[in-house]
Amino acid sequence: MNAKELRKKIADGEFVKPTAGYCEGQVQANMFVIPKEHASSFEEFTKKNSKAMPLLEVVKESHYSKVLANGANLLNELPLYNIIENGKVVKQVTDIGEYYSDDLVFFLIGCSFTFETSLIKSGIPLRHVEQGVNVPMYSTNIKLNPVGIWKGDMVVSMRPIKKERVADACVVTSHFPNMHGTPIQVGYPEMIGIKDISNPDYGDAVDIKEDEIPLFWPCGVTPQNALRDVKLPFAITHAPGHMFVSDKKDSDYYI
Amino acid sequence: MNAKELRKKIADGEFVKPTAGYCEGQVQANMFVIPKEHASSFEEFTKKNSKAMPLLEVVKESHYSKVLANGANLLNELPLYNIIENGKVVKQVTDIGEYYSDDLVFFLIGCSFTFETSLIKSGIPLRHVEQGVNVPMYSTNIKLNPVGIWKGDMVVSMRPIKKERVADACVVTSHFPNMHGTPIQVGYPEMIGIKDISNPDYGDAVDIKEDEIPLFWPCGVTPQNALRDVKLPFAITHAPGHMFVSDKKDSDYYI
Repeated sequence: MNAKELRKKIADGEFVKPTAGYCEGQVQANMFVIPKEHASSFEEFTKKNSKAMPLLEVVKESHYSKVLANGANLLNELPLYNIIENGKVVKQVTDIGEYYSDDLVFFLIGCSFTFETSLIKSGIPLRHVEQGVNVPMYSTNIKLNPVGIWKGDMVVSMRPIKKERVADACVVTSHFPNMHGTPIQVGYPEMIGIKDISNPDYGDAVDIKEDEIPLFWPCGVTPQNALRDVKLPFAITHAPGHMFVSDKKDSDYYI
Repeated sequence: MNAKELRKKIADGEFVKPTAGYCEGQVQANMFVIPKEHASSFEEFTKKNSKAMPLLEVVKESHYSKVLANGANLLNELPLYNIIENGKVVKQVTDIGEYYSDDLVFFLIGCSFTFETSLIKSGIPLRHVEQGVNVPMYSTNIKLNPVGIWKGDMVVSMRPIKKERVADACVVTSHFPNMHGTPIQVGYPEMIGIKDISNPDYGDAVDIKEDEIPLFWPCGVTPQNALRDVKLPFAITHAPGHMFVSDKKDSDYYI
């Protein structure tokens, strides 16, 4: 299934689940949608925190992507959306058409699912893909650089990696700086304020085997987490793990 | 002080200490000297275990380097040598002239000191360099691929790295595959059979601070360790940490 076919299925309501492991080698993106009023300060916020929020595309006065997938409808081509009011998720929907107005600005942000094909091709299997569950994600105590109203803590995704492949996982992902790049933490969750690794804040828990070490990458759910602090009256995001699968190849962003 | 000047000092008996931190940007090498009889099987052994023993130069029927430092005298231009009989260090000397015969073959093997300049330039300081002590080295339970009489366990060097620079240290050192490349272990010494990190098998202990993680790189002391198992009647090696400082630049081996 290529990205266009998957997005068609999604628009038709036939695919409502996490996108990790689908459409091998395609760039996947987080989405963050807010009223114009706060858009320019948010854009600055992503630039000051680009490891957590690498900005790939901004869509204004339209709801169609141009750069990542020309003509893709951002209102119904992601599998699941969070409707967020005053920092709280009030609803999850598969179509945000009824919320659209041209006052909204769409931010598409790099996602670590993009480098997973490279990891797997390097012989580094991924537990959440094998198990067909969502990647586990955690709030941390890593403070973001604040801009205007924007502030908060970084969210990370976690992948258990066989002990002898840890350095390789760092090297492979270093080639994708626009998809979060290298891990922000290797092996010691408590050092970034994660108290219970079996209890992720977003996504699903996965087992860590005895010969594996947990690696943590910055995650594009970070701005959703920031909303808890910022408490905008209204925002829309992708539901964690339910990404925008674009027409770009991972190799387009390989450095 | 450039490499030639340092080697002159060494030959003159004025420098008898570990070479880490000296001659910024120069390739440093381990040395392993054995009778011809076992040289070809040892060469094969290095090739089957090239992460621990990346072979840079072999010198036969001569005691002068050609490739790494043309004309350098391997008998007295390293700061300290181990004389090893039946697997045991029986003496440490600063000149091995009296042991030389043209039956001996000299192996020069890449050393992790070579990538230390790159780490420091990347803002990753090194405790043993700061403290002016020898790098800590440990025997592990990582089995080498055996060849003929040759077998044994890998030796690793350890450097404590600030938690947020761990992935960067992996990436920086990945560019030097001939100097051991990436760490073989990140953060969990017990996973490779190191029971007491405060008690290295070679070199000096260094402190690991609360916000640091120990990283372990394969080490060119590995063949010395193998001698414990192999028990050749006679061999000469550099003393751990007391390396051959060559005329090659680290950039010559940067990939």
